[in-house]
Amino acid sequence: MTLLDRALSEEHYDVLDRTDSFVEETLAPRTEEIERSREFPRDVVEAAGDAGLLGIVVPEAYGGLGGDFVSYCLALERVAAESAAVAETIQGHTFATLPVLNFGTDAQKDRLLPKMVSGESVGAMLLTEPGAGSSPTELGTVAEATDDGYRLSGEKSFGTNAGVADVHLVVARKRPQPDDSHGVSVFLVPNPDDVEGFTFDRGEYLGMHGHVTGDSTLDDVAVDADALLGSIGQGFRIAMGTIDMARTGLGAIGCGIGRAAFQQAVDYAGDREQGGKPVGEYQAVQVLVAEMDSRLESARSLVYGSAVRIADGEGDTRASSRAKFTASDAAEFCARNAMQIYGGKGYRTDYPLERYYRDARILSIIGGTSEIQKTTVAGEALGL
Amino acid sequence: MTLLDRALSEEHYDVLDRTDSFVEETLAPRTEEIERSREFPRDVVEAAGDAGLLGIVVPEAYGGLGGDFVSYCLALERVAAESAAVAETIQGHTFATLPVLNFGTDAQKDRLLPKMVSGESVGAMLLTEPGAGSSPTELGTVAEATDDGYRLSGEKSFGTNAGVADVHLVVARKRPQPDDSHGVSVFLVPNPDDVEGFTFDRGEYLGMHGHVTGDSTLDDVAVDADALLGSIGQGFRIAMGTIDMARTGLGAIGCGIGRAAFQQAVDYAGDREQGGKPVGEYQAVQVLVAEMDSRLESARSLVYGSAVRIADGEGDTRASSRAKFTASDAAEFCARNAMQIYGGKGYRTDYPLERYYRDARILSIIGGTSEIQKTTVAGEALGL
Amino acid sequence: MTLLDRALSEEHYDVLDRTDSFVEETLAPRTEEIERSREFPRDVVEAAGDAGLLGIVVPEAYGGLGGDFVSYCLALERVAAESAAVAETIQGHTFATLPVLNFGTDAQKDRLLPKMVSGESVGAMLLTEPGAGSSPTELGTVAEATDDGYRLSGEKSFGTNAGVADVHLVVARKRPQPDDSHGVSVFLVPNPDDVEGFTFDRGEYLGMHGHVTGDSTLDDVAVDADALLGSIGQGFRIAMGTIDMARTGLGAIGCGIGRAAFQQAVDYAGDREQGGKPVGEYQAVQVLVAEMDSRLESARSLVYGSAVRIADGEGDTRASSRAKFTASDAAEFCARNAMQIYGGKGYRTDYPLERYYRDARILSIIGGTSEIQKTTVAGEALGL
Amino acid sequence: MTLLDRALSEEHYDVLDRTDSFVEETLAPRTEEIERSREFPRDVVEAAGDAGLLGIVVPEAYGGLGGDFVSYCLALERVAAESAAVAETIQGHTFATLPVLNFGTDAQKDRLLPKMVSGESVGAMLLTEPGAGSSPTELGTVAEATDDGYRLSGEKSFGTNAGVADVHLVVARKRPQPDDSHGVSVFLVPNPDDVEGFTFDRGEYLGMHGHVTGDSTLDDVAVDADALLGSIGQGFRIAMGTIDMARTGLGAIGCGIGRAAFQQAVDYAGDREQGGKPVGEYQAVQVLVAEMDSRLESARSLVYGSAVRIADGEGDTRASSRAKFTASDAAEFCARNAMQIYGGKGYRTDYPLERYYRDARILSIIGGTSEIQKTTVAGEALGL
Repeated sequence: MTLLDRALSEEHYDVLDRTDSFVEETLAPRTEEIERSREFPRDVVEAAGDAGLLGIVVPEAYGGLGGDFVSYCLALERVAAESAAVAETIQGHTFATLPVLNFGTDAQKDRLLPKMVSGESVGAMLLTEPGAGSSPTELGTVAEATDDGYRLSGEKSFGTNAGVADVHLVVARKRPQPDDSHGVSVFLVPNPDDVEGFTFDRGEYLGMHGHVTGDSTLDDVAVDADALLGSIGQGFRIAMGTIDMARTGLGAIGCGIGRAAFQQAVDYAGDREQGGKPVGEYQAVQVLVAEMDSRLESARSLVYGSAVRIADGEGDTRASSRAKFTASDAAEFCARNAMQIYGGKGYRTDYPLERYYRDARILSIIGGTSEIQKTTVAGEALGL
Repeated sequence: MTLLDRALSEEHYDVLDRTDSFVEETLAPRTEEIERSREFPRDVVEAAGDAGLLGIVVPEAYGGLGGDFVSYCLALERVAAESAAVAETIQGHTFATLPVLNFGTDAQKDRLLPKMVSGESVGAMLLTEPGAGSSPTELGTVAEATDDGYRLSGEKSFGTNAGVADVHLVVARKRPQPDDSHGVSVFLVPNPDDVEGFTFDRGEYLGMHGHVTGDSTLDDVAVDADALLGSIGQGFRIAMGTIDMARTGLGAIGCGIGRAAFQQAVDYAGDREQGGKPVGEYQAVQVLVAEMDSRLESARSLVYGSAVRIADGEGDTRASSRAKFTASDAAEFCARNAMQIYGGKGYRTDYPLERYYRDARILSIIGGTSEIQKTTVAGEALGL
Repeated sequence: MTLLDRALSEEHYDVLDRTDSFVEETLAPRTEEIERSREFPRDVVEAAGDAGLLGIVVPEAYGGLGGDFVSYCLALERVAAESAAVAETIQGHTFATLPVLNFGTDAQKDRLLPKMVSGESVGAMLLTEPGAGSSPTELGTVAEATDDGYRLSGEKSFGTNAGVADVHLVVARKRPQPDDSHGVSVFLVPNPDDVEGFTFDRGEYLGMHGHVTGDSTLDDVAVDADALLGSIGQGFRIAMGTIDMARTGLGAIGCGIGRAAFQQAVDYAGDREQGGKPVGEYQAVQVLVAEMDSRLESARSLVYGSAVRIADGEGDTRASSRAKFTASDAAEFCARNAMQIYGGKGYRTDYPLERYYRDARILSIIGGTSEIQKTTVAGEALGL
Repeated sequence: MTLLDRALSEEHYDVLDRTDSFVEETLAPRTEEIERSREFPRDVVEAAGDAGLLGIVVPEAYGGLGGDFVSYCLALERVAAESAAVAETIQGHTFATLPVLNFGTDAQKDRLLPKMVSGESVGAMLLTEPGAGSSPTELGTVAEATDDGYRLSGEKSFGTNAGVADVHLVVARKRPQPDDSHGVSVFLVPNPDDVEGFTFDRGEYLGMHGHVTGDSTLDDVAVDADALLGSIGQGFRIAMGTIDMARTGLGAIGCGIGRAAFQQAVDYAGDREQGGKPVGEYQAVQVLVAEMDSRLESARSLVYGSAVRIADGEGDTRASSRAKFTASDAAEFCARNAMQIYGGKGYRTDYPLERYYRDARILSIIGGTSEIQKTTVAGEALGL
């Protein structure tokens, strides 16, 4: 047993089994079509809900599995090995669900969580802004208090599931600013179809096709008083409270892409002959295979090392940031070199190699670039 | 003046000027549309012909510029900085034109070269086969001698401009095999539309959109006796005779992509502010910029170092293989990190970064993978 | 708790405690002197024996601790963080002790093991030959059968503790070759001082000072019949039977060096000011720190992942080869960059950085180069 | 001809010839002994003077060759391929000679230059201080004006040829500070044996044995009024005025080490057999050879690209910083991998591989670390 195997219980294997079934029966037959149509696969999200994958860490009271964060990562890695776009969709949804679980009022939780766990209601977090990045002090979106709620105005960039979500967690600054709080807050905003003033411009991206993100514009969008998640001024805590989990989850997606690419490369190199012997017998190829193997195993060790600590309530910024940048690198490295081993065929769209290559590329960028992760890790290591 | 500047003459600057005009006036307005439609840009190829870019190294007697190989690389790099797909189209065409120049009979040269130089007639080399790679001893395509010519049958993979070309240089084995030659030969085959039995299946690829390649099937394709290029048994010499030039040319395309990516990254990093200062003031970004700068300058030095030697008649396998893999790496490195500096925006298809990233990726694969280039370089260095 | 922490029991912490005491009380005060004098630290080896560190995996019946292989790696890493030369000395001794344990007759075990566990008797394995590398079919050392034993002749290169050991396990080919065996065998040869015809030429090396290796010449060295370890023809099994453990142990030494270098770098970067702020606040330094951190944690995960499997009786060639090359790389990377962070001071011999840099360098070479490990890993991954 | 060959004239080949003679006749027989004794090789420096190598860029009027900076780099690279320590000694001497040439009064030039060019008088620049690094505003060494000169006090770290030089260029702040200048100045200080109050503590270093550097302490050292080089306040200009040249020169040393390592590796890999074929036929080794080849050629292109521009009076910070860090990396890479190809033997001190490995390591540190060079390159590229 590997170190990771030792840390796994029956509960984890149960989640892996559920995920396998979901992947093989529901996802795999849809992967290519999602890739080509680029349409948001609402049906697949709902099937993921049916399989329990949208509520792995949500208590059973709300319909979740009541599992731990290791289960979440195992499932996400497995989904990502088939479709990184769907994995990222689940990831975005999960990190809109968890803030509701952690900060919502009982009423909000009762109202929202069961639907989010089942996939009936899709979630999205809208934090980043065109001018401000993700820095809370620079955010320009405002929530003007009205008699019976708030009117939100501002622009948001990116945000997985933006525009297609039913519950957008919009980070905004309440106006007038209360005396006792300088912080931002989170407001729940419905789908653009269900509210006036919310327009969404979906971008086209290199990869992760089917996953939806883009530019959201809120122009005097009216929401009720109970659209406030938690209390005024908690916005930064809400947005950042699950950051170690989110980074570790992105690392798990990296492991999934890397693993799929590695497996394809190994299968191909063992089969395909060139100059009278399998491609994999050439040492120049073997060096690539061994380095992919090492990077991937390292990435998995760091990702699950972080996940285990989070599951134990010992979540750690250094471990999660390190896991994220290492796994993102590993995913890029494996995707790049798996294509290299395939040669010209790997460049064709009728093999999945080029999809791995495109999908992997986003991981070093979203959720904090690798450069940011590195300065974070160093800051922790140095005690600065 | 840099070492390269010192090696340049007025002739070279003249070719650069022609290329600049072509790029700015004709190519740039078409780049995005070529990318989206993925259609073979025959009009652009013809415009390149009008600008003299298809005959840079062809003698003036055939309508060419009578220039040297350095001019070719300068032009190709410049075109690639705008559109790598068009650069690769010119590259494929050029390496079908040169064999005609070097091995054709006077009649063949008179008939074919003027049209190839003007772009009226597009050329393609069909060497690689699905089962055999590019090894001449394993090629399975045959040219059965008939009373008045040959009948060709076989399958060919890849080959830039395959299917859309008007002149395909098909490497095949004459049957019956003559007593005095065991080698393969080259036969000129017209466009699939103009001959029976030639079908072409264009593939879809990660990048280089607009550039055409795919699988060619020849099923008893009849050609005249004068379709034989050069003489029987010269096929390998014809296909390999320009290999140092071809590799160096691919290196020039790498320089072009790398340069475009670098320029975009530098412009963005100088302008775009984050946390109150330009992105480019963060050392983590500066390290990337400096490493891109070093890789790119190194690649250009090696590519033009090889080009100058070729122009001097001292073409060198070690220099050209080294230039190719180094420039391919540099292109990938710059494209990857330019996107990294852009962050999330770089992943969007409305910026050219993701195109550079996709286009750059093929360079380490075509014309001999980087692994093959490295074993070649080492073999030369070691005298093995 | 990390994944590794979870796998550790009280027994492991007990071994770590013993090692800490040994390192702090006995080793640390001697490290610099060993480095300078380059003399074989027989006293330190004996003290390691007293602390139980030479018999961690040897049964208590022979005076060992009866521990598992994880304990061995933990101890070795800890020793290596202080003195890689002493760690390698213990490693060489251990991999001469284990073959005696695994293949010796009861009489050999009773005679040899207690003294090897206590450190009274130092062990060395002599396998490699100048002309043959480690390939058993090419070994030229012969053991001519005599009336009462064997006479050994041949040359051996390298072999940790060669020349200073009291028990050399010499791999040789019995003459006359028995009909039923084509293999090599292992013969126990005493210290050069205690036998005629055994000369040893100690080499001088870049690093690992105090650790002894060099060229052994056996010229008709007479040994008794009971010098045969195990039976005729078992030589390759004996030499290779512990190879997964040996590689994993070398990986643990890499972790030790890497960790020591990292710790020095972090301490320095946090303290030392330049331009009015700690060196560690410069992002260019932070990037190095974070990459060291990731490499080191990855290496430790792979090394202990392999060690745990070995302890479970599931030793795995792919896991151990991967651990070895990854940890060797990490050690080189950390030693190199720790010195970089120190700047000019790191190049001075009055800081330990340059020692780490020299010591780390051997790990990618001994016990099978990293290139060999990579082809091994790829072979396993590919099922070739 | 390569791009570099094209830029070379007879003058350059003449300098190369002189250097070859010096290296083969004088230096090579002394290299190993310098390495072992670690003594400052004054005789070799004088022989370098006799060969003209200490005055390559000094006008003939002062006994120099009146050559250009390309000649200097060619000579330095050639010397470094034999002994990097001697090359660095010449480099340190040269960058004490040039400030005298550029800023000295006629009297100073007449007095000092002929002896410096002949090697009778060795030069050293003392800039860096323990607390201040090389930042002029933080330098603490002072030159108290007296009736007939100055009294210098302070501490200096590093400085090639410190302590053994006959002419130390000490950067200090004049006291009292003149009204019209806030800058530092340069004072000429003789050998510690020839002046009171100047003590020198030579450090021991990982490599570059024979080259001398260490800590200088000036305790009220009296110098005459004409010890002032140039005028008050010019210190920073003097120290920094040749920085592009100095960096390019360090790059040339990197090329020399890298080349020597590469040549050794290639010779060995072509000769040495393993498993029945030359080591160099294994692809895993070929990959290393090809990457060394590419790195080395790239480094040389950048170094001589910078040198040519300096020779043309177009010295460029970006080009020289880029050349320095790229060549330093290439030297480390080649030294590391040449040893890897040698295997265990490469770790022995009776081969020069380990010396290359130790010597190469300093290049990324002195003359501004690679991190500093990268921020400099990026700053120039970004126009910040």
